[in-house]
Formats: sequence, C-alpha cells, structure tokens
Amino acid sequence: MNQEEPTLASLSTLKPLGQIRNSFILAVNEDGLWIIDQHVAHERVLFERVLKERAAQKVGSQRLLMPIVLELSPAQQAAFSEISDELQFNGFEAEPFGARSLAVKVAPAGVDAGSVEHMLHELLDQFSREEQSLNLEKIRARIAASIACHAAIKVNMPLEQNKMEWLLVELAKTDHPMSCPHGRPVVLRYSVKDIQKAFKRI
Amino acid sequence: MNQEEPTLASLSTLKPLGQIRNSFILAVNEDGLWIIDQHVAHERVLFERVLKERAAQKVGSQRLLMPIVLELSPAQQAAFSEISDELQFNGFEAEPFGARSLAVKVAPAGVDAGSVEHMLHELLDQFSREEQSLNLEKIRARIAASIACHAAIKVNMPLEQNKMEWLLVELAKTDHPMSCPHGRPVVLRYSVKDIQKAFKRI
Repeated sequence: MNQEEPTLASLSTLKPLGQIRNSFILAVNEDGLWIIDQHVAHERVLFERVLKERAAQKVGSQRLLMPIVLELSPAQQAAFSEISDELQFNGFEAEPFGARSLAVKVAPAGVDAGSVEHMLHELLDQFSREEQSLNLEKIRARIAASIACHAAIKVNMPLEQNKMEWLLVELAKTDHPMSCPHGRPVVLRYSVKDIQKAFKRI
Repeated sequence: MNQEEPTLASLSTLKPLGQIRNSFILAVNEDGLWIIDQHVAHERVLFERVLKERAAQKVGSQRLLMPIVLELSPAQQAAFSEISDELQFNGFEAEPFGARSLAVKVAPAGVDAGSVEHMLHELLDQFSREEQSLNLEKIRARIAASIACHAAIKVNMPLEQNKMEWLLVELAKTDHPMSCPHGRPVVLRYSVKDIQKAFKRI
C-alpha cells in the first residue's frame, strides 16, 4: 500500500463503488484502488471545520431537550475550570450544579445527547492527566478533535452512494486528507502498478 | 495480500462492485476485498472446460468464413505433424497446403479468426522447442491453455455487471480458481483483518 500524501486532484476524481463491512469505502480512479476509513475520513473533515468555525467564533451548537448532569472527580473539576471558556467557544454551555456536578444545557452541533457525557469525561480526563498546562492552540485542537470524533459517521454503518460521494468531496477539500486528528491513516492506496505487479503482469 | 487457496464457499458469496482500468474486477464479501484479473480468471474457466470437452470428445468448433493459410518453418512443420491429431480433437481442421503452408478451415469455438494464425504459430513454436517429445496429457494441457488464452476476455475491456457476476460464478465452479494455466495468480485477497491493521484499528 502506497502511503504518500494524496493530491487533491487524484482525490477529486475518485468514484466510490461500495463499502467493505459497512465501514470502509472502496473507490477507484485512473490511479488505482483507494480504501477510505469512513469514520476517520469524516473525523478529518469535521476537525478542520470546527477549528475554522472556532477561529471565526461561529461554532454551531444545539440546545439539549433536557440538561445533562455529570458528576466530576476533583481532577475533572480542576480541568473543567481550566478549559471552561474554551468549551463555551466550542458550543458548550455548562455550569456547576451542586458541589461536584456539572449541568450541560447546550452542546456542539452534531454531537448527540447520548455522547455528551462520555465525550466531556474523556476530554476532562485527558486534560487532568497533563503534567503542564497546554497552550491555547493545543487546547483548541484537543477539543476540536473530540467533537469531530463524537460527531463523525461511525463504522458498521451502511452509506448511500450520494453520502459516500459527499464524504470524498469534503475530504478532498481538507488541508490534510491523509490522516485523522489522532494520526491514524484515512486512506489506503493500491496503485494500478502495484496490482499489475501482484498479478505478475509487469 | 493473502494468497491462500480461496474456498468455493467464499468465492460464491462475492459481489462484484466494478473494475479498475477495465481490467481488474473489485469484489467484496464478508471476508473482505477481492481483486480478480478478468483475463486470467476467464482463462482458468476456459482451460478446465476445454480439457473436459476434450476428454468427452466434445470440443466446440466453428467453420471459418475463409480458410486461413499459414506459412510454416521446417521446425513448425515437424511440430505440426506430431500434434495434428490432437489439434483435430481440439476443434481444428487443418491440412497441408502446398509445400510449406497449412490451410485452417475450422477453429475451436471462441478463438476468433484473427487470432488463429498467431495462436498456431505460438503453439507450434512451443512444441518445436521441446527437446524430448511430450506425453499426451501434456500436449492436451498445452493446447487447452492456448485455446483458453486466445478465447478469454482481454484486459482493458469494460464488463457489464452481469458479465462480472457470471465470470465469478464460473470461476467458483473450477477445480483450481487460484491460478491460471500458466501459473499466474487469478485473485488477490485483502482480508477485513488486513484492512483493519493497515488503518491501525487492531
């Protein structure tokens, strides 16, 4: 598998043919075969979008039907007070509720209510484990990656043809289509030359 | 790529999704991704069919609109006299035409008139290069492989969905679907596990 950075030109000519196990999109163009991990591809798209919206102070959010109340450990409470402003700029509205709890009333668009608790606990644990305080850029990247991860299309999900096409078009528009915010690969490529070699044609 | 012998069960569940460069069929099932070289797959199907038809003395043939006249070298003439009976059992009708030529009036079904001359020259050259005479089984296999090669679907040929499905069904019925008569691989497999590993999911 060829792991070079795909060019925008080659990504934009891809034609999705279907999925493997409802998780990996198979696509072809004149260069050969591409396999796209649908979850991390969408994560990359959302990550860059959230960062841009944050920079423009335009992160989309949704009011929850009912506030979600989270119990926080002392370490999580400390982490929350450190990043609460930045969480607010990223579409959260949350305030202390009693001595050790947090009430979340508004969450970023795309993160469904069922994921909010898990996402915030995970994020606060991450920050509480840091030995030194992070700069604002790193805090923003962490939060954007967490929103992207929880809002992205999951694996084991059937996608219609137009949804696959949409995802590849959006991926082609990103600055770094090759890897997700956590560094995992988004696409695998298998060139026509590689295929011909494997078949002993060249 | 996993090069193990595919099972009939896994081959028969394949769903073709499309082609790469009009030459390699992409197909998926629960096991993962399969890439099939359309030419060698058809070659394998035809090879086994010709051998079975030969054993039953039922090789299909077609009368050519006009006889094809081939000039033969002395070595090719010698090879022809050695295998002419077997050529006849494989659907050829050819007889000497003048001192150094051969007139072919009937050819095996599927081998088009334009390929007959090339195919016979190639085959006679092969036999004339042999240092010792071959047994009948080897002669039959050589002739069947040659007919299969020249009658098979070529690469760089678009295939309709039903043609791809037909080819995979026929391939699943063969005794040795993994390699063509010349020993080249017919299928490449990329298991779901391999894909998950490449994406660092396991």
